[in-house]
Amino acid sequence: MTIIEKLAEIFGSFPGIGPRQAKRFVFFLLSRGGAYIDELIKLLQNLKKDIKQCSVCFRYFAKGVTAENRCQVCRDSHRDADVLMIVCRDVDLEMVEKSGAFAGRYFVLGGALPILEKNPERKIRGRELLKAIEKMSKENLKEIILATNTDPEGENTADFLRKLLEPLVKKHNIKISLLGRGLSTGAELEYADADTLRNALRNRA
Amino acid sequence: MTIIEKLAEIFGSFPGIGPRQAKRFVFFLLSRGGAYIDELIKLLQNLKKDIKQCSVCFRYFAKGVTAENRCQVCRDSHRDADVLMIVCRDVDLEMVEKSGAFAGRYFVLGGALPILEKNPERKIRGRELLKAIEKMSKENLKEIILATNTDPEGENTADFLRKLLEPLVKKHNIKISLLGRGLSTGAELEYADADTLRNALRNRA
Amino acid sequence: MTIIEKLAEIFGSFPGIGPRQAKRFVFFLLSRGGAYIDELIKLLQNLKKDIKQCSVCFRYFAKGVTAENRCQVCRDSHRDADVLMIVCRDVDLEMVEKSGAFAGRYFVLGGALPILEKNPERKIRGRELLKAIEKMSKENLKEIILATNTDPEGENTADFLRKLLEPLVKKHNIKISLLGRGLSTGAELEYADADTLRNALRNRA
Amino acid sequence: MTIIEKLAEIFGSFPGIGPRQAKRFVFFLLSRGGAYIDELIKLLQNLKKDIKQCSVCFRYFAKGVTAENRCQVCRDSHRDADVLMIVCRDVDLEMVEKSGAFAGRYFVLGGALPILEKNPERKIRGRELLKAIEKMSKENLKEIILATNTDPEGENTADFLRKLLEPLVKKHNIKISLLGRGLSTGAELEYADADTLRNALRNRA
Repeated sequence: MTIIEKLAEIFGSFPGIGPRQAKRFVFFLLSRGGAYIDELIKLLQNLKKDIKQCSVCFRYFAKGVTAENRCQVCRDSHRDADVLMIVCRDVDLEMVEKSGAFAGRYFVLGGALPILEKNPERKIRGRELLKAIEKMSKENLKEIILATNTDPEGENTADFLRKLLEPLVKKHNIKISLLGRGLSTGAELEYADADTLRNALRNRA
Repeated sequence: MTIIEKLAEIFGSFPGIGPRQAKRFVFFLLSRGGAYIDELIKLLQNLKKDIKQCSVCFRYFAKGVTAENRCQVCRDSHRDADVLMIVCRDVDLEMVEKSGAFAGRYFVLGGALPILEKNPERKIRGRELLKAIEKMSKENLKEIILATNTDPEGENTADFLRKLLEPLVKKHNIKISLLGRGLSTGAELEYADADTLRNALRNRA
Repeated sequence: MTIIEKLAEIFGSFPGIGPRQAKRFVFFLLSRGGAYIDELIKLLQNLKKDIKQCSVCFRYFAKGVTAENRCQVCRDSHRDADVLMIVCRDVDLEMVEKSGAFAGRYFVLGGALPILEKNPERKIRGRELLKAIEKMSKENLKEIILATNTDPEGENTADFLRKLLEPLVKKHNIKISLLGRGLSTGAELEYADADTLRNALRNRA
Repeated sequence: MTIIEKLAEIFGSFPGIGPRQAKRFVFFLLSRGGAYIDELIKLLQNLKKDIKQCSVCFRYFAKGVTAENRCQVCRDSHRDADVLMIVCRDVDLEMVEKSGAFAGRYFVLGGALPILEKNPERKIRGRELLKAIEKMSKENLKEIILATNTDPEGENTADFLRKLLEPLVKKHNIKISLLGRGLSTGAELEYADADTLRNALRNRA
C-alpha cells in the first residue's frame, strides 16, 4: 500500500467519508502543499497536547493555559447543581449548550448502546456515572435527565441507564426524566409518524 | 395548445408535479390506452358524485349508499364529545385517525394561513368553526386542540385561531391546547434545532 | 374500497407516484372542487377523442381538425427520407425533436426489452417496424439509427433490433448506426465510469 | 479560537466538508484517542516526505525507496510515446488509468481555468506543458488529447490550451483531439440535455 492509499484509508474511517472522498482529501492535501500539511500536523499535535478530558463530566475540552482538570461548565459555580443531564456524545452536549436552554450539569457517556449489546461497560462510562451521581447527590442533586437520541439505540441506552441508576435514585430520592416527545419545530402532521403523533397528543398543553 | 399540452398543464398543477412528470403522465395514459382512460374518467365522475363534505367537520367522505350528511367519525356516538381537534387539511385528520391516539371529534379548516394573509376567511372555514363550537359547547365541549403544523404557516394559523376563539372559549369555559412539542421519534440530538431542544427540555417528563 | 381509495390506487399506478402522493392527488381534487374535476374529465375525454396514433411512426399526436392519420413529422415532406431513427418511447422522440438535431424520420417501438424478455413481440412493435422499413426502403432509406437508452434494457433492445433487421438491411443495403457514446455535457472525469471513459477515448476527435 | 475550532476550520476547508461535519471529525479524533491521532500525524509526515511530484507529468506519486524523479507511468518504457493526454487534476489521471483504456503518456495541469480567469498561468502549468511537449515532439509525439471535463470550466480550459499549443502543434505537425461526446453509459434519452443529444447524433457510428 502506498502512503496515498494508507492515508486515504485513515480518512475513509472518518464519520461519513467514503473511499472516493478520502482519496480526494489526500490529493487536496498534496495540491495545497507542504506548509498546509505542516499546519494540519501542528494542529493535530496541539489537539493531543491541549485537549483534556474533563474529570467531572468526561467531555473533551481545550485546557488552555490553566492546569484545570474540569471543563468550563463543570468549573462554573453558577450552573444548577440540582439537575444533571446525561448525554451520549460530546456533540450532544454542545448542541444543548448552543440552545441555551439548560443551566444544569452534564455527564458524557461516551457512546450509546446498540440493542443486544453484550458489553455495555465497554461502550459507555457506567461506573464513572455512578460515581459522579453519588458525589452530586451530596450537593443536592434532584433530577437526572436521560437526554439520549430517540432512535432505537438511544431508547435502549435510556432503558439501560434507568436500571443502572435505580438503586441510587431510590436511595437519594432523585427524579429521572426524559426529554419531551412530540412535534419538532417545522413538522408537518401529514408526514409525522404515528408514534410521534401519539406523543404529541399525550403531551399536548 | 394541443390537448397533450393542456392535460399536462392540469397534471402540472397537482401537488409536487413538475412540467416534465406531468407530460409523462399524459404519455403514460396514452400508452395504457382507451379502457384505462375510461376507468380514470369513471372514477373521477364517481368521486364527484359519491363524495360529500361532512356537514359537521367538513372533511370529504364517500357517502356510499346512505344519504348521510355526516362522515363516519361524526356519526359515531362513541367518540368523545368533550374534545375537538382542529386540523388544517383532510390528510392531517387521516394521519391522526391512523395513529389511533385520538377518540374525540374533528374540524377541518380547509387550509392554513400564510403569514400576513389578508383574507383569512377565504382560506379557512372560520365562521363554520365558530358555529360548530357553539353547537358542541352545548354537548359539554371542554377542550379544543389546535393541531396545526409547527411550520410558520401552521403557527400563524394557531395564533389566528386562538384570537378567533377567545370570546367563545371564555364564555363556555373551554380549554385550548396545542400538540406537544419535543423530539420526534427517531430524532438525533446532534441534528435537532435549538428550538426543538428547548421544547424537549421544557416538556421533559 | 372507497372511491377515494380506488382513485388513489389508479393515481398510484402513474409513473413515479407512490401511495401517499396518490392520496394527496385525490384530496387535492376534492379541495379544488367539482368544476376542476369536470375540467380534468373533459380533457381526458378529449385526449381519448382527439389523440390518434400515427399510422407511420406510431407516436401519439393530437389530430386536430384534420382527419390525418399521420403525425406532423410524418406528414412533413421536408424531412429526410433517407434516415430513420428508432426510439423506444414517445418522450424519447419528443426530446430528440426538441434538440433540433435530427431532420429524418422516426419509428416508436412502444417500449424497451428487459433482458431475458420472453415475449419481445408483445413489448415492442417488431412486425410494424419491419413493414415500415420495407416501405421506406423504396423511398431510398440509407441509414437506421438505433436510438435506445444506454442502460441494460436499452442495449438489449438495440441487440434485438440488430438481429431483427439484419435480413432487411442486407437486402436493401441500409447502414445501422448507434448514438455516439462518450462524455455527456457537464460531465466530470472524476465521476465518469470506466465504460464511459473508454468510449470517450475511443470516440475522441 | 480553541484548538477544537481551529482544527474544525482546517477540516472545513477539505473538499465537500461543511462546518458541522468538520467538527464531527475533531470529536471523532478525540474519541479515537492519542494513538489514532499519532498514526494520522505519522502518515501526514510521511506524505510530505515520501511524496514527490513527477518531473515529467507533474502528478504526485509515492517515491518509495528509489530516488526516482519520475512516476510509474513516466518511467514505463512500454507506454506509447506518440500520444499525450492532458488532464486537469491527479484524480482525472487516476480515473483514466483505472479504465485501462489509455496506453500513452500524461500531463497534469494542476487545475482548470474558470471563465474570465485573469491569471491562467497561476492556475495551470502552462509553461511546463509547452516544455514537455517540445521535448516529446522529439520522441515522435503525434497526438495531444485535451481530456478536460465537459463543464464550462473544462471547456474553457480546452479552448485556452488549443490557443496555447497552436504554434507548437503546427510546427511539429501534432494532432489535437478532444474526448468523444455523446451518451454516457446508463443514460436515458428522456433525461438527456439537448446538447448531449446533438453530440450523440453527430457522433453516431
